[in-house]
Amino acid sequence: MTTAFLGPRGTYSEQAAIEFAGSDVDLIEMPNFAAAVAAVEQGRAEYAVVPVENSIEGPVSQSLDILIHDTDLKLFAEIVVPIEHVLVGLAGTSLEIVTHVHSHPQALAQCSKWLDTHLPNADRVAAMSTSGAVQAVVERGDHTSVAIGPERAQAMYGGEILVRGIQDVANNRTRFMVLADHDAEPTGRDKTFIAMRLDKNLPGSLHKALGPFAAADVQLTNIITRPTKRVLSEYVFLLDLEGHRLDPHIAASLEEMRAITQELKIIGSCPQYVSKFDRETSGKEHH
Amino acid sequence: MTTAFLGPRGTYSEQAAIEFAGSDVDLIEMPNFAAAVAAVEQGRAEYAVVPVENSIEGPVSQSLDILIHDTDLKLFAEIVVPIEHVLVGLAGTSLEIVTHVHSHPQALAQCSKWLDTHLPNADRVAAMSTSGAVQAVVERGDHTSVAIGPERAQAMYGGEILVRGIQDVANNRTRFMVLADHDAEPTGRDKTFIAMRLDKNLPGSLHKALGPFAAADVQLTNIITRPTKRVLSEYVFLLDLEGHRLDPHIAASLEEMRAITQELKIIGSCPQYVSKFDRETSGKEHH
Repeated sequence: MTTAFLGPRGTYSEQAAIEFAGSDVDLIEMPNFAAAVAAVEQGRAEYAVVPVENSIEGPVSQSLDILIHDTDLKLFAEIVVPIEHVLVGLAGTSLEIVTHVHSHPQALAQCSKWLDTHLPNADRVAAMSTSGAVQAVVERGDHTSVAIGPERAQAMYGGEILVRGIQDVANNRTRFMVLADHDAEPTGRDKTFIAMRLDKNLPGSLHKALGPFAAADVQLTNIITRPTKRVLSEYVFLLDLEGHRLDPHIAASLEEMRAITQELKIIGSCPQYVSKFDRETSGKEHH
Repeated sequence: MTTAFLGPRGTYSEQAAIEFAGSDVDLIEMPNFAAAVAAVEQGRAEYAVVPVENSIEGPVSQSLDILIHDTDLKLFAEIVVPIEHVLVGLAGTSLEIVTHVHSHPQALAQCSKWLDTHLPNADRVAAMSTSGAVQAVVERGDHTSVAIGPERAQAMYGGEILVRGIQDVANNRTRFMVLADHDAEPTGRDKTFIAMRLDKNLPGSLHKALGPFAAADVQLTNIITRPTKRVLSEYVFLLDLEGHRLDPHIAASLEEMRAITQELKIIGSCPQYVSKFDRETSGKEHH
């Protein structure tokens, strides 16, 4: 089961890919979203794991635009990774002597309150990725530089975790989609991801398009608006629904919706994401 | 008219602030969104210019969360800046000898096709900001390094624009909001920005909340979904509407909406953004 993901290794993207694939033996690293999608389209990978929301490393609106316009791959699974930054340095590094903190600018920004308090005099140095920052600091081998990144990067490149949980915002997560040439079978606890194109000049068109779901008690959990690439006054709405496209009430609502929208693309249905922690907890409750 | 903006100077954020303020004499540079908002709240600035969508330098979902939860500042104006990356180097630099390209990782990602074609062997080096990259390359003074950034950075720091329009995606824009302690007067061509909190467990709650706008022919141009910070199953929807909150049909719809939603926050009304280019073009048409 070969799985393509957005490199480099040691990032939150790799963490999502490992959670999906079970281990890192069949992962192939891709330089961008388009390449990950192409790997599946061309048969070099079965799955592609790509960030869709609140990522550190990727331009997510570009990802969504490829999903809307440029590929027929389907949503096969969803993975949510908590962003938990750790401070990594050489073993025995004391914060007093640190002069440089390296990371991706977004990760540095997400830890800026902690840095202001605990490393107020250290220079912040940009890196292309969080894991690249950890690798560079460990390889440089001097005690005055530290890096901010995921725990996974320290496990790969060594050094020592000096401080955990240094990000300012709690509940910081990145949502990833696993794409394949088909979507997933119904499980009874699923979600469906669709893109619908509406004419901007039709007032209330969104209200009208949502009507079938409201009538059928279908739950909407997320809406993202993207301009279409073709016409400036047109919008694409990306919707997350609770339920599988093959569930009868969802199937009927989607049919009604197709008649109302200018275009409806069903990106696919897959099981709702349940974190490993929640799976283990709910497992224990039943024993 | 002191205006706070997200530094550093020479970025697209400063470009937006100058377009709003008319010149750069009264701009004050802030390290993050929270500080820019605080500057207005504490009276050190009259306006704060902050990115809300598709930014390169800022974590935009954090900005929106502050707007939803942590401030009572109002939307006073909107500015849209086209992201147009240029390649900057020392005068007379030829691409053949370039070994390093510096920029913010997002900007490097947005130019990755161009770089693959025209500088396939150059190393990509991360910088904390696009303008910082331009400044560093110009100050380093060697012909083997170039930077990707806004034209404004070259105007500030020198060097030469070697190539224009190198980003892969056309129509790449960043939307900025200008916040103040009050919103703007009606002009007849306005927009209103609101946040509404809906109970996730109420199926069709979004459809119901949009009903008053649909009935009154109010145009919706954008929707953003954010989880609330308080309860996992709750969402906040941020909506852009055409019209001013004081226009009678908008005012009536908002009143109806307030009764339906769990919470309604009117962030403010301001004139719809018209680019300088469009203003000049439409001006010419009338002469």
